[in-house]
Amino acid sequence: MSKASFHHSDEHLALELQRKMEGASQVFLLTDSNVAELVLPRILPLLKNADKIDIIEVEPGEASKALDVCHHIFQHFIEANAGRDALLVNLGGGVITDLGGFIASVYKRGIPFIHVPTSLMGMCDAAIGGKTGIDLLDVKNVIGSFAYPKAVLIQPNFIETLPIEHIKSGFAEMVKHAIIADPQLFDALEIIDIEEPNHIALFIERSTLIKEDIVMEDFMEEGRRKILNFGHTIGHAIESFCLSVDAPLSHGHAVALGILVEAKMSYHLGGLDLESYTKIQRLLSKSFQFPKNCQWEDILPFLFNDKKNKNNQVRFAIPKKMGTCEWDVAVDLEEARAAFEELINE
Amino acid sequence: MSKASFHHSDEHLALELQRKMEGASQVFLLTDSNVAELVLPRILPLLKNADKIDIIEVEPGEASKALDVCHHIFQHFIEANAGRDALLVNLGGGVITDLGGFIASVYKRGIPFIHVPTSLMGMCDAAIGGKTGIDLLDVKNVIGSFAYPKAVLIQPNFIETLPIEHIKSGFAEMVKHAIIADPQLFDALEIIDIEEPNHIALFIERSTLIKEDIVMEDFMEEGRRKILNFGHTIGHAIESFCLSVDAPLSHGHAVALGILVEAKMSYHLGGLDLESYTKIQRLLSKSFQFPKNCQWEDILPFLFNDKKNKNNQVRFAIPKKMGTCEWDVAVDLEEARAAFEELINE
Repeated sequence: MSKASFHHSDEHLALELQRKMEGASQVFLLTDSNVAELVLPRILPLLKNADKIDIIEVEPGEASKALDVCHHIFQHFIEANAGRDALLVNLGGGVITDLGGFIASVYKRGIPFIHVPTSLMGMCDAAIGGKTGIDLLDVKNVIGSFAYPKAVLIQPNFIETLPIEHIKSGFAEMVKHAIIADPQLFDALEIIDIEEPNHIALFIERSTLIKEDIVMEDFMEEGRRKILNFGHTIGHAIESFCLSVDAPLSHGHAVALGILVEAKMSYHLGGLDLESYTKIQRLLSKSFQFPKNCQWEDILPFLFNDKKNKNNQVRFAIPKKMGTCEWDVAVDLEEARAAFEELINE
Repeated sequence: MSKASFHHSDEHLALELQRKMEGASQVFLLTDSNVAELVLPRILPLLKNADKIDIIEVEPGEASKALDVCHHIFQHFIEANAGRDALLVNLGGGVITDLGGFIASVYKRGIPFIHVPTSLMGMCDAAIGGKTGIDLLDVKNVIGSFAYPKAVLIQPNFIETLPIEHIKSGFAEMVKHAIIADPQLFDALEIIDIEEPNHIALFIERSTLIKEDIVMEDFMEEGRRKILNFGHTIGHAIESFCLSVDAPLSHGHAVALGILVEAKMSYHLGGLDLESYTKIQRLLSKSFQFPKNCQWEDILPFLFNDKKNKNNQVRFAIPKKMGTCEWDVAVDLEEARAAFEELINE
């Protein structure tokens, strides 16, 4: 399991990518049409033999994480006679790295792949940790694999290509990492201006390292890795519900709301103290609001479809205090309901 | 990686299956309509809570190893709220274990599964070794994973439910195991009557153990496991071609033809001596003939789609002598053509 490497200019990133592509019999590059317009032209001219790279473009957005999209790309690989030593470069946000990672992990039982995340969410979270996945029936990542990329190459300045909503989405995961493992990072995130990509870019590496350290300790998610699910149990349910009524929220937005609910649960249960909870609430409420139409009864069915459930109990990752988190905590769902309803009525 | 266990009565098999199902939150059983008719009624009445097992039936035959079949089963799992501690029992031949193993390995990034092979091919080969796969565009197993079942339970007498063509198909893999690793097994297979299930059943465990030993040594197929591909480089190409012209051969039939060609290549290249080659030729020609319409030019394109190819070179597993096999042998395709054409003109 190799660590993500950071490259602070397009030239350095391209140089490293070039090095990693050597030896591959064929190179495919998966991206979406936004990234193809905004990032690809910065990198492609810097690569030797760029004309030999087979570029596969999908629509931007979560809807591309689908079985029929996989089907098309598998067909493309087969028609191009892609062998086991072909390489797939996934250039894009979490959708691209989740989708491309899954495809690479099952095509011919696994070909090498490289992630080059272009979104903040990708850099801090989705591209790190070797999980891949696609969605089905509004259930996120319900089909997927554990598969580790050959390399993860990060150029933090790519985030300047992102709309503010995407920055916010990734920011939620940075806040999560800070709460579960790094109180000093939390203090920093409170101060910076999230509308300034330069500010954010300063803290990407620190956030990424938190996730990497946790994953290295527990790749198969049998124990401590589960703390990364903080905010996600409620967050995924909100996200799935919103998707099911055709009013999708970004993943980060849903996670931010999940963090709010689960932090409040922690506070109620004697975990986070009032000061810490209030700081979290103040930081996230600036950028994230609950959707108007979303009631507890709406999200409840989606809570039961979480991959982390065992024997139909819902388990949470719950911070003990700022910087420390417990996992596999069975919490009465009435606690979750109470926290959720207090927040939506605030 | 646990070894396959052998159970010589339906009662013993059911007892062990029962034990392995304990602790699962839900049990799904994947099978095909033939097996549902011939084998399932022997086992189901012997299980406690049989009525709680969710039985999923697919059409018999290779066509079920398809992405749209996976899609339906994934949907079924989601609708049944199957969690990560659900269990999938794959009761059937190689199609069922390949398909079910793949589905289980990617649903929620992997749920436990048990193989109960009912075909000779399944017992000796497909259910052993942790490879899963489905087909696309006439390319066999082009989508798949390495994933190890929680258990493989074998009741050798199930083969009495099989038509003779299926017995023959599995027999080809037994012959392969004998050639690459066990000359004494080869001698035994020469003597027995393959129309007698009792005769065959005696040697299943020995054949299965050969594969298990090789797989345990090299699970990810980086070295010696590749000797299991003996007969399969040419065999897969013949099989894919026949499928593409709607005249499918059984996998074992294609492998038997592949063994004939590759054994002849070995003889030409100074590997197998004339006596060994002649024994192989005599044993397999009794049961397997080349299809009339199949020329070298027909199978050539399919040779280049083999998963094992590196840098577009075709590599073979080639026996050095009876009981020993080399792998990753780059052979000039003219050698393969010569052996193939000699055989089809005999």
